[in-house]
Amino acid sequence: MPGMNMPTSRTKAEFGFIWPVRVYYEDTDAGGIVFYANYLKYFERARTEWLRACEIDQCRLDAEAGLIFVVRSAALDYRAAARLDDLLTIGSRIERLGGASVEFMQEAWRGDELLATGSIRVACVARATLKPVPLPSPVRAALSRGACVDTVLSTVNAQIR
Amino acid sequence: MPGMNMPTSRTKAEFGFIWPVRVYYEDTDAGGIVFYANYLKYFERARTEWLRACEIDQCRLDAEAGLIFVVRSAALDYRAAARLDDLLTIGSRIERLGGASVEFMQEAWRGDELLATGSIRVACVARATLKPVPLPSPVRAALSRGACVDTVLSTVNAQIR
Amino acid sequence: MPGMNMPTSRTKAEFGFIWPVRVYYEDTDAGGIVFYANYLKYFERARTEWLRACEIDQCRLDAEAGLIFVVRSAALDYRAAARLDDLLTIGSRIERLGGASVEFMQEAWRGDELLATGSIRVACVARATLKPVPLPSPVRAALSRGACVDTVLSTVNAQIR
Amino acid sequence: MPGMNMPTSRTKAEFGFIWPVRVYYEDTDAGGIVFYANYLKYFERARTEWLRACEIDQCRLDAEAGLIFVVRSAALDYRAAARLDDLLTIGSRIERLGGASVEFMQEAWRGDELLATGSIRVACVARATLKPVPLPSPVRAALSRGACVDTVLSTVNAQIR
Repeated sequence: MPGMNMPTSRTKAEFGFIWPVRVYYEDTDAGGIVFYANYLKYFERARTEWLRACEIDQCRLDAEAGLIFVVRSAALDYRAAARLDDLLTIGSRIERLGGASVEFMQEAWRGDELLATGSIRVACVARATLKPVPLPSPVRAALSRGACVDTVLSTVNAQIR
Repeated sequence: MPGMNMPTSRTKAEFGFIWPVRVYYEDTDAGGIVFYANYLKYFERARTEWLRACEIDQCRLDAEAGLIFVVRSAALDYRAAARLDDLLTIGSRIERLGGASVEFMQEAWRGDELLATGSIRVACVARATLKPVPLPSPVRAALSRGACVDTVLSTVNAQIR
Repeated sequence: MPGMNMPTSRTKAEFGFIWPVRVYYEDTDAGGIVFYANYLKYFERARTEWLRACEIDQCRLDAEAGLIFVVRSAALDYRAAARLDDLLTIGSRIERLGGASVEFMQEAWRGDELLATGSIRVACVARATLKPVPLPSPVRAALSRGACVDTVLSTVNAQIR
Repeated sequence: MPGMNMPTSRTKAEFGFIWPVRVYYEDTDAGGIVFYANYLKYFERARTEWLRACEIDQCRLDAEAGLIFVVRSAALDYRAAARLDDLLTIGSRIERLGGASVEFMQEAWRGDELLATGSIRVACVARATLKPVPLPSPVRAALSRGACVDTVLSTVNAQIR
């Protein structure tokens, strides 16, 4: 996509990870704009791809350790509306890496316009009990190390061309 | 809701079960109408309530016998569009009760206007393997007997007043 | 539904409005629980029904005055998980009635167990520009007056029997 | 994604267009698999991207000519289940190009395993009336010409690496 600029008020380096999201009919509502609950889906896709880029395999974590991630809280602010066919960029960074939880700061941009922000706290829990479990140390290490931003950027650039 | 008439071209007796559905923002898209995929949700809600009215407990079936219902095929026709705040009536009947599957004929009405029809084939499968399993005989018996239509109608009437 | 108790830690009078929501397959995810974003849908359904009970007609407001309600912010806390077939009760009350916005406090309960809370700020905007517009005075008056709780409770009681 | 093979029983040339779709939590249900209604979303994303690859701009068509596409019928068969984190390939081709409608044949594959097929008829209608309108001739010409498969494949290959 020519002309997709990064947000001017932030540098790429501020985000641990960026991920593109296209708006389809399924995402919109009768107001003609993206249904606000769907930003939670966009933010989740971005977190999932971030974990994947960090080589954290959620399916294996579930199958082998019985651990899943669940959202404990979400605070969302909506500043401007996205519309059908818009190409959004989701920027994500870790705000706080706790013992059994991770707090993400995420933003949805359209070009250089900030549309929505989310502060999402995710807990690591046992699937069987939904009780919190400390983050396994390889997961913690991978999150601390982060995804390779350059690799991610080149993937994304290929994707949105 | 005053003035909600049943379809004139069919009698109530033709449906094994009817269930009301209200259209909310979440259901609509930027075309200003109900997103077509959501009729599959409406039809599923109606089938679920039908099972409940037949005293078939899907959660117990899963917990005790490891059986779940999955949709094998769906054929949908869209005749007219539903809009925000519309109150729809979903009529359902069993078209064919097979050994390990059930074929439902379902319709969505707004007053006496037919909006959409669906022919949905649901299979009983083992959760672990997703392979077909014969319908347990109490389930088969309950489906054959059907829900008590009078009870259902009175519940629905109370609900849509 | 026998045994559906209201929350013990709060009295019915604390909520301006309550509304029942049933959990269907469409609402759940592979974690076996209700997908967290769907509480935003549940809360919206409850607000919509509240407006209806207050005799505020959103469709007419749009058609006649070009006004729609949009969500400006949402803060959600998740305390316990809902599962397939659960019957939830959504309690809602107005926290603050502003010039062009309304702040709702909403909670999802299963019997006497609090599952999730939401603080949702909704703005009245012009559909064409999405800019804030003061709440029309009949809307403001209706919201101040509130829904008739007794009527609502009897509707809900009929619905969940 | 290493090992993503194209379907063996069909050649790439049979599809006018292929598009990758990743399965996220939002797509799954308590059965642990992709909720069947969501294949309609996947198929729509693929059709939308196909239109884009054909340089048909749906937003401009709506803004300038008041035309939108609506789904008139959908017939879906489900053969195998997709799960969290699966990467699917949606193959699409035009089955019939009518005067005011297009019939698409679409398939969802995981590697060389066919999961679901859909036959989707889409009509071109006036937004105001939802009545059918002949496909504008540039749209018809673009659909007949089709997307440049090689370009699309290279985009997709970049995307799923």
